[in-house]
Amino acid sequence: MVIVGLVHWPCLDKNGKEITTAITNMDLHDFARVCLTYGIEKLYIVHPYKDQLNLAGRIIGHWLKGFGSEYNPLRRKAFEVIRLAHSLDEVKKATGAFMIATSARYRNGALSWDDVRALSKDEDILLIFGTGWGLAPRVMDEADATLEPIKGIGPYNHLSVRAAMAISIDRILGR
Amino acid sequence: MVIVGLVHWPCLDKNGKEITTAITNMDLHDFARVCLTYGIEKLYIVHPYKDQLNLAGRIIGHWLKGFGSEYNPLRRKAFEVIRLAHSLDEVKKATGAFMIATSARYRNGALSWDDVRALSKDEDILLIFGTGWGLAPRVMDEADATLEPIKGIGPYNHLSVRAAMAISIDRILGR
Repeated sequence: MVIVGLVHWPCLDKNGKEITTAITNMDLHDFARVCLTYGIEKLYIVHPYKDQLNLAGRIIGHWLKGFGSEYNPLRRKAFEVIRLAHSLDEVKKATGAFMIATSARYRNGALSWDDVRALSKDEDILLIFGTGWGLAPRVMDEADATLEPIKGIGPYNHLSVRAAMAISIDRILGR
Repeated sequence: MVIVGLVHWPCLDKNGKEITTAITNMDLHDFARVCLTYGIEKLYIVHPYKDQLNLAGRIIGHWLKGFGSEYNPLRRKAFEVIRLAHSLDEVKKATGAFMIATSARYRNGALSWDDVRALSKDEDILLIFGTGWGLAPRVMDEADATLEPIKGIGPYNHLSVRAAMAISIDRILGR
């Protein structure tokens, strides 16, 4: 089983400094819709600040119970997969899953796409995505494994987290 | 060669009525970054209204020549792939490419992912994506071909255009 985590701390800024990023409405929508399309039942939005989780909660409430639930019932269904958490530790405890960190850069010993595809059939894996300029190195260190990057053509490798997540899930669970 | 078109008219609203959708900043960013990552050199933003194309032009200008170009030179590189067009006819004339329409629904005679992958090696293909609730049926009729949908698991099939585009390009040009 695949579980997804969208991580807002600790992430990097463009100078490699650790930062906390803001939750964005668009990420919640795009992530939830990909998850539901591929049968993923749990999407954790990870943010250390209560105010930010409350904001996410209000957006989710709009689609689950507010105007949005009547305006677009299909969107409601997608939002049902979302869970809120203050930290990755909290998610690890709640899921007991094997945590795999994603990155645009290759790290020694990274699992291949085929590895993760096979693993997801036997085990609960928690696939985490960093916002900003990606997950902080210490998250990569603490993860149970890392995943090889999405390689395109040529040296440019700067996908949005929304695109990276969609492609990753399709590679692991698609077709 | 693959060319991408992001189409804002004629698209459908949630009741199946033809509409013109607004250009969104996030779509430009996500599409441009996916295109550049996969070596796609031309991304057409198609909108019939001059005001909307001007808005897109101002956003692009910010990243190509304004503050954004210094703040994030990698983003500038991605924005270099963007072209603006008033209609699909204009794009067809400019590119002479074989136009393939994408949809969340299967249409009789749709090409498979493998078909399109093979085709893109020999020919210029123009892959078009609809915004709102997708491309209007008459665009599907006028296209040279349609592409089979991205199938997930189960009946839910409502990806954002950003996710659908990322997955499609990875299936056609990835790995």
